[in-house]
Amino acid sequence: MVEPVPLALAYRLLNHGPVTLVTSAHGGRRNVMAVAWAMPLDFSPPKVAVVIDKSTFSRGLIAASGEFALNLPTAALARETHAAGSLSGREGDKFERIGLATFPATSVGAPLIAECVAWLECRVIPEAHIQENYDLFIAEVIAASADRRVFHDGRWYFDDDSTRTLHHVAGGHFLATGRSIDA
Amino acid sequence: MVEPVPLALAYRLLNHGPVTLVTSAHGGRRNVMAVAWAMPLDFSPPKVAVVIDKSTFSRGLIAASGEFALNLPTAALARETHAAGSLSGREGDKFERIGLATFPATSVGAPLIAECVAWLECRVIPEAHIQENYDLFIAEVIAASADRRVFHDGRWYFDDDSTRTLHHVAGGHFLATGRSIDA
Repeated sequence: MVEPVPLALAYRLLNHGPVTLVTSAHGGRRNVMAVAWAMPLDFSPPKVAVVIDKSTFSRGLIAASGEFALNLPTAALARETHAAGSLSGREGDKFERIGLATFPATSVGAPLIAECVAWLECRVIPEAHIQENYDLFIAEVIAASADRRVFHDGRWYFDDDSTRTLHHVAGGHFLATGRSIDA
Repeated sequence: MVEPVPLALAYRLLNHGPVTLVTSAHGGRRNVMAVAWAMPLDFSPPKVAVVIDKSTFSRGLIAASGEFALNLPTAALARETHAAGSLSGREGDKFERIGLATFPATSVGAPLIAECVAWLECRVIPEAHIQENYDLFIAEVIAASADRRVFHDGRWYFDDDSTRTLHHVAGGHFLATGRSIDA
């Protein structure tokens, strides 16, 4: 059910501010971490801004590979998302410890998480000053895809309550994406 | 019902990725625009990252004053939020045209929007390179407040459906903040 999303519409996967699972890989190691501080930065070519703390294991993998992927978890994955934000990848493979299946990305080395509903494959645009001073990474989205049951033709369809994306408040307290409102 | 939010908890107003109304003022002019691309950037002192396009009237007011405020609209304000993202402040006072009441901020010259439920008063941290190249502004949150009926003790309480915050997908299509999930 994974279907490519045209790059010009990729921002719509992230525009509503969901929490993300950031995946990365380098030199035979891989990791996943939960990141709420991610947002679109441009439409076309699509860019994103993401905060990756210096203390994390993922930071080293992303700095070394120049790549990462944003995966969007659902309400059914709240426990796993919280675990991905609490454990460290230094202490063993987090995908196995948390119980997350993966599949290969099309354009980056980072794995994609099978249980998620949308994926943005990203290449870091080197901006050393803000990376160093604010842990802020700017990246171009070079491929995007989504579970067509949940996102197609540029819109979200959360017909099944368990497939709603998540928004993180703090400490494992999430808010699910709610009802549609057309202004 | 407007109550100060401790600065160390200010990130929780924005952590779930709601759309914002950015207010600004300078030299007797003021403006409001809808911005979905805003996120926390640090906990303490709290910082935010916000995209302010060069083409907007607000950009000039923010560049000149070095200040802005993020106001969080609710489901009841979807129409006004869409209007704030569609009209230009160059063609007359948008608060009056849209029908938004304001009250003074405590620490910035930008007005705060009375119908909103949370407010972050921000001072720009000059970072010319990313402002110029990505329209990306970094700012410190110097005061924060919220409607205590909807946010208190570091958590959201959306008991009244009309007070839920909004997440923007595209073109006036919003998703309301939904149910709580504790992992």
